[in-house]
Amino acid sequence: MRIDLNADLGEGHAGVSPPQDEALFALISSANIACGYHAGDAVIMQRAVEAAAAKGIAIGAHPGYPDVSGFGRRPMQCAPSEITAYVIHQVGALATFCRASHSALRYVKPHGALYNTAARDAVVARAIANAVRSVDDGLVVLALPGSEMLRQAESIGLRTAREGFCDRGYRDDGTLIPRTEPGALITDAAAAAAQALRLAPTVDSLCVHSDTPGAVPIMRAVREALIAAGYGIRPFAAPR
Amino acid sequence: MRIDLNADLGEGHAGVSPPQDEALFALISSANIACGYHAGDAVIMQRAVEAAAAKGIAIGAHPGYPDVSGFGRRPMQCAPSEITAYVIHQVGALATFCRASHSALRYVKPHGALYNTAARDAVVARAIANAVRSVDDGLVVLALPGSEMLRQAESIGLRTAREGFCDRGYRDDGTLIPRTEPGALITDAAAAAAQALRLAPTVDSLCVHSDTPGAVPIMRAVREALIAAGYGIRPFAAPR
Amino acid sequence: MRIDLNADLGEGHAGVSPPQDEALFALISSANIACGYHAGDAVIMQRAVEAAAAKGIAIGAHPGYPDVSGFGRRPMQCAPSEITAYVIHQVGALATFCRASHSALRYVKPHGALYNTAARDAVVARAIANAVRSVDDGLVVLALPGSEMLRQAESIGLRTAREGFCDRGYRDDGTLIPRTEPGALITDAAAAAAQALRLAPTVDSLCVHSDTPGAVPIMRAVREALIAAGYGIRPFAAPR
Amino acid sequence: MRIDLNADLGEGHAGVSPPQDEALFALISSANIACGYHAGDAVIMQRAVEAAAAKGIAIGAHPGYPDVSGFGRRPMQCAPSEITAYVIHQVGALATFCRASHSALRYVKPHGALYNTAARDAVVARAIANAVRSVDDGLVVLALPGSEMLRQAESIGLRTAREGFCDRGYRDDGTLIPRTEPGALITDAAAAAAQALRLAPTVDSLCVHSDTPGAVPIMRAVREALIAAGYGIRPFAAPR
Repeated sequence: MRIDLNADLGEGHAGVSPPQDEALFALISSANIACGYHAGDAVIMQRAVEAAAAKGIAIGAHPGYPDVSGFGRRPMQCAPSEITAYVIHQVGALATFCRASHSALRYVKPHGALYNTAARDAVVARAIANAVRSVDDGLVVLALPGSEMLRQAESIGLRTAREGFCDRGYRDDGTLIPRTEPGALITDAAAAAAQALRLAPTVDSLCVHSDTPGAVPIMRAVREALIAAGYGIRPFAAPR
Repeated sequence: MRIDLNADLGEGHAGVSPPQDEALFALISSANIACGYHAGDAVIMQRAVEAAAAKGIAIGAHPGYPDVSGFGRRPMQCAPSEITAYVIHQVGALATFCRASHSALRYVKPHGALYNTAARDAVVARAIANAVRSVDDGLVVLALPGSEMLRQAESIGLRTAREGFCDRGYRDDGTLIPRTEPGALITDAAAAAAQALRLAPTVDSLCVHSDTPGAVPIMRAVREALIAAGYGIRPFAAPR
Repeated sequence: MRIDLNADLGEGHAGVSPPQDEALFALISSANIACGYHAGDAVIMQRAVEAAAAKGIAIGAHPGYPDVSGFGRRPMQCAPSEITAYVIHQVGALATFCRASHSALRYVKPHGALYNTAARDAVVARAIANAVRSVDDGLVVLALPGSEMLRQAESIGLRTAREGFCDRGYRDDGTLIPRTEPGALITDAAAAAAQALRLAPTVDSLCVHSDTPGAVPIMRAVREALIAAGYGIRPFAAPR
Repeated sequence: MRIDLNADLGEGHAGVSPPQDEALFALISSANIACGYHAGDAVIMQRAVEAAAAKGIAIGAHPGYPDVSGFGRRPMQCAPSEITAYVIHQVGALATFCRASHSALRYVKPHGALYNTAARDAVVARAIANAVRSVDDGLVVLALPGSEMLRQAESIGLRTAREGFCDRGYRDDGTLIPRTEPGALITDAAAAAAQALRLAPTVDSLCVHSDTPGAVPIMRAVREALIAAGYGIRPFAAPR
């Protein structure tokens, strides 16, 4: 049994990486690195890529809406052509930092409102998928099981991986409870670990948001629970 | 006899390309495309790359300081490691748009204050050259003859091309008259054309700044004078 | 008979005012000045305020969503408290430039998607109105007749003025045809002038968008038609 | 005996205040609030102003260069007219948030590279002073003793207050050791407290930088040492 643990890293500003990044790097197997649109900048991107490469952590691009003031968590009505251009820009920049560090970009996981919109909106999902493919058709798309994002990515021949959230509440239909509603966030480490064990058989990768209060102890509890249950923590496989 | 004509394109905002870009695309053989740090954005970058590719115009990245409010024309005391990260980010993003359009990035020409600082500051020039090489060691660096920029690029094995300015006054030592001083700008089309003819034998590429008042008629006069003098207008050669 | 002519000014970048601003200043009686969130910056704001003050043109703040890359024309799902903070920020900054130029801010007209959302969304409209009142309860709110924006502003005691658009198509219900649909834009100067004459008896102020192609000749045609019909062009009155 | 304790607050992003702000608010008597150019945004500015007002803490504006990516710590060659516009923009916006919260802006303390440049460059210092005066000639300028900033502010009739740094090393000439050199930062709480006691008789206000590692315990040690030595911690006086 194996499972991937991913977290959103590099979501800092002004060349300063978030304080929790270092601890998270020691716990995860895949790093979703912010690409400057919702957070992050060139200095942070480069540092995060180098840290991930040095630790053998798989590197993913984490593109979002162009919304620093809202941390990419607010839906924006962008045209599909704008979304494609924005995602090419972000993924291409991160892929370049990977090459410059003699590593390689492995996957793309949309961020925040872009992730949520792409889960249910086929046009937005397709705009993202087209962007990913035009950067590198070997990239994997990581998203919610059953989402339009995975459907559209697969429909144009991209490989995909399914993600579960240890620190977010789910509705019965498998979608996430919006952050503006009660139950959206799980901040109890034991509860997150229990949810991780429930989700692990159904997904390729498990996420703890790095800005959830207590993200580091939550991730540690998740990791320990998974290992105790017999899982190896490794980057997800995404066979052709 | 051949000469290259280059201009700075894509220096718009909010997805709107500058009004003069279309006319300039019909006159130039190389396009220096803004990469979002001093001007430009993903939508404009993509559009400019596609336009250049469609017309057979060579594509260059035009990276600058992170200074939208000053159009990249104000010196900033950045650390060399910051400059390297900024240039990788900008050049890598533009190279990705080129690949996504089935074209290829050919060269890098720093913008504004970064160009001027790199002309005389070996540390800044080296930081830029390192960035260019780490993105793609086949890229050519376009800069002022005799500049540190060309010296540092050549010292690490990059190919280079020499640039002259049709619309900027020169000092006797071959450096440009700063924009804050009288004589910095040549806005008379005939004078610019005459300067182009003087410079053409000594450089690989001639530039007219796209935001110089009357840039389009100046570029047209330059082009016609060069053709009348027997020059073919073609992207610069940069043999190994 | 009197009518006000307004235009959106200062929508430039990097300290450079849009080329049409100077011509428009000679034709209008009220200037809606961009406040840096969708376009404009401190240097442009100050210049526009000083130009308006020197010509006796009434000065309005033109606050938008924090969306430079979309020119504030894309709806964003911001919390009401965010909108209030954003509008206080923008209106307060412009009011300060007015005081520094020994002039005074007269009114507030929301921009783009914020204007359109506030026309029909009472929560957003109220968030804007609260912001305006907390900056200066003597400010007038300029918006679409029948809009939630005017209703909410009046409900908390602000004065209001009604606006018509010479260069935008209307639906039968008095709302604007969205910019993504056919008929949204009127670019024929005679048609815009005819629409101005139809609208003038029903509103306090008429607008031509400064980025509509041919904005200057359209505004000139509108102005001449209104004068020929006996209107005096003056800042709108907004009696208590 | 009395002394003021100030800290830089509100230096967050995306509506998120820095984690140390809350603890610092309990220790200081004056808050220098970031104005969006080097850090901070409208939501954070409003929250910081309201927190300061609720606690009876004096509110200062903390304007910087337009350099989010460098946190305002990199010198930029801006024209004096640009600096004046930038400072009016920042100070005016913060003053508006104060009025909207029924409090009042008390003083202006430039940030980072702008502070350091204004300490020795009369032209920059005068550009800042002119901006402050044009916003409100009752504002106090807080800066380094012996600096051009204080000299220029006084020369145009502004009141001033002198500042000392508990967490920064000084050269013999009273200037700060640059952050790029050894000895620039004092992170030992006892050493900072000792420096505070030495500086207190010579200045009106003492600062601990909120991003110095251990800022909260340092500020607590400074505060306790000053109280133990008989000082009352109160906003600085600035008599006419």
